[in-house]
Amino acid sequence: MTASREAILSASRKAIARRGVRGLRVNSIAADAGVSSGLLYYYFTDRAGLLRATFYYISERIDTRRSEYDAPGDSPRARLEHRIFEYRDDEELVEGTAALNELRASAIYDPELRAPLAETTADFIAQLRGEITEAQSGGEIEDHVDPQRAALAIGTFMEGLDGRWLSGQITSAAARELLSHVIAQLLGPRPSGGSGQTGQPVTSVAPVSDRNLITRYCLLSARSGVTAGSRG
Amino acid sequence: MTASREAILSASRKAIARRGVRGLRVNSIAADAGVSSGLLYYYFTDRAGLLRATFYYISERIDTRRSEYDAPGDSPRARLEHRIFEYRDDEELVEGTAALNELRASAIYDPELRAPLAETTADFIAQLRGEITEAQSGGEIEDHVDPQRAALAIGTFMEGLDGRWLSGQITSAAARELLSHVIAQLLGPRPSGGSGQTGQPVTSVAPVSDRNLITRYCLLSARSGVTAGSRG
Repeated sequence: MTASREAILSASRKAIARRGVRGLRVNSIAADAGVSSGLLYYYFTDRAGLLRATFYYISERIDTRRSEYDAPGDSPRARLEHRIFEYRDDEELVEGTAALNELRASAIYDPELRAPLAETTADFIAQLRGEITEAQSGGEIEDHVDPQRAALAIGTFMEGLDGRWLSGQITSAAARELLSHVIAQLLGPRPSGGSGQTGQPVTSVAPVSDRNLITRYCLLSARSGVTAGSRG
Repeated sequence: MTASREAILSASRKAIARRGVRGLRVNSIAADAGVSSGLLYYYFTDRAGLLRATFYYISERIDTRRSEYDAPGDSPRARLEHRIFEYRDDEELVEGTAALNELRASAIYDPELRAPLAETTADFIAQLRGEITEAQSGGEIEDHVDPQRAALAIGTFMEGLDGRWLSGQITSAAARELLSHVIAQLLGPRPSGGSGQTGQPVTSVAPVSDRNLITRYCLLSARSGVTAGSRG
């Protein structure tokens, strides 16, 4: 990807996360990215093309960002669990999660967004399903668990959790705790002596703090003009 | 509630479900409801007041609508399961679910919507928690299940499922099947000889058809000008 193309997609992600899809102005994105509107239209044809490309860009970036949380020696199940704990102090993850959440909500009203939504969602579910199957082969998840159904249930739950987390209804620590509980119910408990397991309990993956909540607040209240300090 | 007040709230729900919160024009709502803008402002003060009242109105109406699905002789657990299976051919439920989903997504950007969002969500979780506790007293859910955590997990999952269902990524039948699976994992299986149980399997609560998907499609594509017929 060229630097200017990436700058445009990054500016689009930030604008969607802060102001929503329906507040998106193509000319402002070009200005934010430091390129001409002509170049933006050359790359993406029109507003719909830019939104579609932003969908794929965010999904790929979140995948990459998540895999950076893999710990050395992670067993397949530990890797799966580390990757999906996206509720943490990582500005790019927060921004990407906010933008994806907004794109998902907009797809209900905008038929042009439905194909990229369906594709990126199916990709994520397929990835989860693969990770579940791998953990199953290693004996870390019992055979009676249906990988496709479990992946769909976890992915759907995470989408609901994203909305609660982004609107400040649940703290990062509580979101991680709830996700950990739901995973244990859907995949069964992690075997205590499983092969290659890291032993670190999932709920302590990231330090428990309210920084994440404040980060989201700063990110999302940019439009309302309220400062993080005034919140305490 | 006066008839004119209810007409305004009903028109607001329909407009949000069809065109989204950010496309909402107060004067159009008054016209749709057959009242003057003056009366609307008299009742709700401003746009934010109308949105807040719409939030509460929809939540109450969905609760009422859900309870109409109670079957005679339902045990507490059967009642709980019948009520939350909102993914069915019921125009008001579809419209209410669509409007709530849109209000939830908008609350991320609009601080004024966060208090009604938090209150209506907490009410729904408290109701679910109460129903779980009641089923526990009757021996239909095992004692080790934490009612508050289970209610929060089910509510969060349903919000994710709403988004998928409304954007046509999952059929009504598949949504019911997935919810049924998740409930069984979170609450444990229904006891086969439980007291007062209806014996009707949850997945057959409503006839399996694509009518619901088409209803949602018609409802939500009103803005895009596509007809349901063109979709097959």
